[in-house]
Amino acid sequence: MLRTLVAAGVIGLAGATVHAQDERYELSDDVAGTARQLAETALESDLAYEIVESLTTEVGPRLAGTPQEARAREWGVETLRELGFENVRVEEFALDLWTRGETIYEDVAIVSPYPQPVYATSLGGAGSTPEAGLEAEIVFFDSYDDLLTFDDASDALEGKLVYVNDRMVASRTGEGYGWANRKRRSGWVEAENRGAVGVIVRSVGTSSHRFAHTGMMGFPDERMPEIPVVAVSAPDADQIERIHESGEPIVMSLNTNAGWRGEVVSGNVIGEIPGREAPEEIVVIGGHLDSWDLGTGALDDGAGVAITMAAAKLIGDLDQHPRRTIRVVLFGAEEVGLVGARAYAAAREEDGTLDNHVIGSESDFGAREIWRFDSNVGEHALPVMDAMARELAFLGILRGDNEGGGGPDMIPLQYAGVPMARLAQNGEDYFNYHHTPDDTLDKIDEDELAQNVAAWAMFTYMAAELPVDFRPQDDEGTSEDEAN
Amino acid sequence: MLRTLVAAGVIGLAGATVHAQDERYELSDDVAGTARQLAETALESDLAYEIVESLTTEVGPRLAGTPQEARAREWGVETLRELGFENVRVEEFALDLWTRGETIYEDVAIVSPYPQPVYATSLGGAGSTPEAGLEAEIVFFDSYDDLLTFDDASDALEGKLVYVNDRMVASRTGEGYGWANRKRRSGWVEAENRGAVGVIVRSVGTSSHRFAHTGMMGFPDERMPEIPVVAVSAPDADQIERIHESGEPIVMSLNTNAGWRGEVVSGNVIGEIPGREAPEEIVVIGGHLDSWDLGTGALDDGAGVAITMAAAKLIGDLDQHPRRTIRVVLFGAEEVGLVGARAYAAAREEDGTLDNHVIGSESDFGAREIWRFDSNVGEHALPVMDAMARELAFLGILRGDNEGGGGPDMIPLQYAGVPMARLAQNGEDYFNYHHTPDDTLDKIDEDELAQNVAAWAMFTYMAAELPVDFRPQDDEGTSEDEAN
Repeated sequence: MLRTLVAAGVIGLAGATVHAQDERYELSDDVAGTARQLAETALESDLAYEIVESLTTEVGPRLAGTPQEARAREWGVETLRELGFENVRVEEFALDLWTRGETIYEDVAIVSPYPQPVYATSLGGAGSTPEAGLEAEIVFFDSYDDLLTFDDASDALEGKLVYVNDRMVASRTGEGYGWANRKRRSGWVEAENRGAVGVIVRSVGTSSHRFAHTGMMGFPDERMPEIPVVAVSAPDADQIERIHESGEPIVMSLNTNAGWRGEVVSGNVIGEIPGREAPEEIVVIGGHLDSWDLGTGALDDGAGVAITMAAAKLIGDLDQHPRRTIRVVLFGAEEVGLVGARAYAAAREEDGTLDNHVIGSESDFGAREIWRFDSNVGEHALPVMDAMARELAFLGILRGDNEGGGGPDMIPLQYAGVPMARLAQNGEDYFNYHHTPDDTLDKIDEDELAQNVAAWAMFTYMAAELPVDFRPQDDEGTSEDEAN
Repeated sequence: MLRTLVAAGVIGLAGATVHAQDERYELSDDVAGTARQLAETALESDLAYEIVESLTTEVGPRLAGTPQEARAREWGVETLRELGFENVRVEEFALDLWTRGETIYEDVAIVSPYPQPVYATSLGGAGSTPEAGLEAEIVFFDSYDDLLTFDDASDALEGKLVYVNDRMVASRTGEGYGWANRKRRSGWVEAENRGAVGVIVRSVGTSSHRFAHTGMMGFPDERMPEIPVVAVSAPDADQIERIHESGEPIVMSLNTNAGWRGEVVSGNVIGEIPGREAPEEIVVIGGHLDSWDLGTGALDDGAGVAITMAAAKLIGDLDQHPRRTIRVVLFGAEEVGLVGARAYAAAREEDGTLDNHVIGSESDFGAREIWRFDSNVGEHALPVMDAMARELAFLGILRGDNEGGGGPDMIPLQYAGVPMARLAQNGEDYFNYHHTPDDTLDKIDEDELAQNVAAWAMFTYMAAELPVDFRPQDDEGTSEDEAN
């Protein structure tokens, strides 16, 4: 059944063309039928779950630049080959390694007025304390904005620990993350400039449990922090807030050994389902292989790795491949600054294949169900995206807008002009687990994961099969400035 | 209004008597009205929340025998005095101190086949590893029963780490705890007897998060373990189970510094609402002041401390005290073996006031709503308990049986013949937090806590006001053997 549909679909489509912007584009029955059949197969398959189970069990945490990330690359090469991908390879790149120290634990405590341990973790890129640790009074800021507008002339932060308390708002789209993340990315600059000896922030994220949320800081002008910067769990932040509200000065102690360890090797792992008619044209999908060190990176981003590998594998199992090549990229070193994504785009710039990327999309927002299909393509191609959306609707997916990005690792490609699609996941509880020890396999619902694979298989197949140029034509605008 | 009801109630009750077992006992309108009014006041009050907030913030974790537990006693004395309790005092007792080491963190990891850190914690009473830590292969037991029936003659456990995987069943009554706890209490004996170098158990408890569950082990014949014994979180246990099922041998490393630190001082804190007519007769209620060191002991047992203190305080605020004395005992060193409870019973044996305890009950099962009222009293007093239950029903409380205990710290008193009542709480999610870092204030629902105080105020008032002897009469049996 599947075989017949595909063969017919190919013939039927050979002469398809894209109509003007406001026209309705109709998929041939054959393409629509194959896409639907791929989805039905995906919904019955547990391949993605098996992949993420394998990655998170047999590799576990895989911080960028560590031997664990190197093991993840070996795992990626082996798994892609086992699944029948072609041109499987690693593209290495150099990386400055940052680690937490010898263990995942760091000692943070309230010293006075009420001595007690605090669950905390260094933020990525943070400096360490002196070897014996440090003790200082905190200066409590309700919000990052209060820190920004704090009187510059004052020496009130000299020798102090800056504490920033912004709370993150949970949402289906994750849109509260950027705002809450400002303190994580830039709090240290404000603090260090004013003589503070360290920074403590309420964890970004929405977990109510006693987990601290790590994540990379920002480094404006490539400046690196010399001071320690830690996040404390929400219950600990509540505790600090309560004590602060009582009016008592709070002294805290930190003892961390975080720091930069020199240049190491990271890499992207690549595998392909070569195209039948236009193998040089590339639909690029993927996830990132590295994870933070605290959890096993099941949601971030083992799921994305598994979803895109499984979707491409199901397409590869069709009796004949789609017209274009499907390239799965398992990006390295995403968490520490999209280093693999930048290396991938630079390598394509160098080998002259950047323009061969017809459309891109990354899965990097957990494992919940896809609920919206966004795009960022030339206006002439919107009727095609709308037609894809009509096919995706049976999975409970809405048509979104044409303003979105394709995921973090797609940003360098998007800036280079590659069109993007986004299969938006429900992120309502993503930040309950993200970047914490609690990002583990048991948080994945197998049915929702399978719905993801179904949606990705449909989209990827259609994008690789339809002879459509998704790029803006000369008279069309783009939304690429929205990407970051 | 409150004042009038109470005054009338006292007069009305002076002549009340208990009728035969199968007769219906009617509370006077005055007693019933005062009880109801106390409940209405309690439902509007946030006193218990303020108390548990104060304890968990200003003291925080308070492991038995540590300076933190001593601070908790100071807090208890101050708070009881502030609330108007009389005869506030500390009764000290000696305690053997066990601690985890210098920090709350312990290094546990899978070494092979897939190296990764594991979230784990020592069980109370465990020994330590050699200073450099230890590495050994695990022998995987699906259940404690499998370990018990493991071939004795074999030396298969010599030099190995014993791993026990029993899962706990969640229930409203918490009845899955005892079964799952066997591995925690006695696993080490079986392992050490067979030459194992350590024990690792799947955490007792029902948390799906990455928290290990601590708790005291059992020490048959006062023997103490020389080997390390740790619990791993449920996601880590799942990981170990998956690797085990793949057939690969698993080597794990432990580095712990747990151990016994010598004799120290602990103590019980006592405060009273002296009785109006029979001050020598004592209704004893309370909770335990110590907690495990990983969380701040909000549910276990800051809530119990707060509920019983608040209930007694509300009764103390009545225009006149009930007939009997209400004694609130904040027990020390419960978690480490009911040491405070035993000391309290022994002291009463010594001062000859054991028989003055007319009924007892402890709150030590979290902060969720009371849903059932159990008793363990002489049969002649059952109509009185049934009458109390009819008053409690408006709070959504069922009448339970006459077989129960009065809570862990009541066990020594119950063995000594003191009648018991139990205000059973909904424990469906208690073991999601219990004995983990996640037992913190934010887990308490203020409305459910207030319902608890309402029920405790009603019960405690009625028990102290009604001139009933709850003890079995000569021809009646008891259920005291059920207590442990």
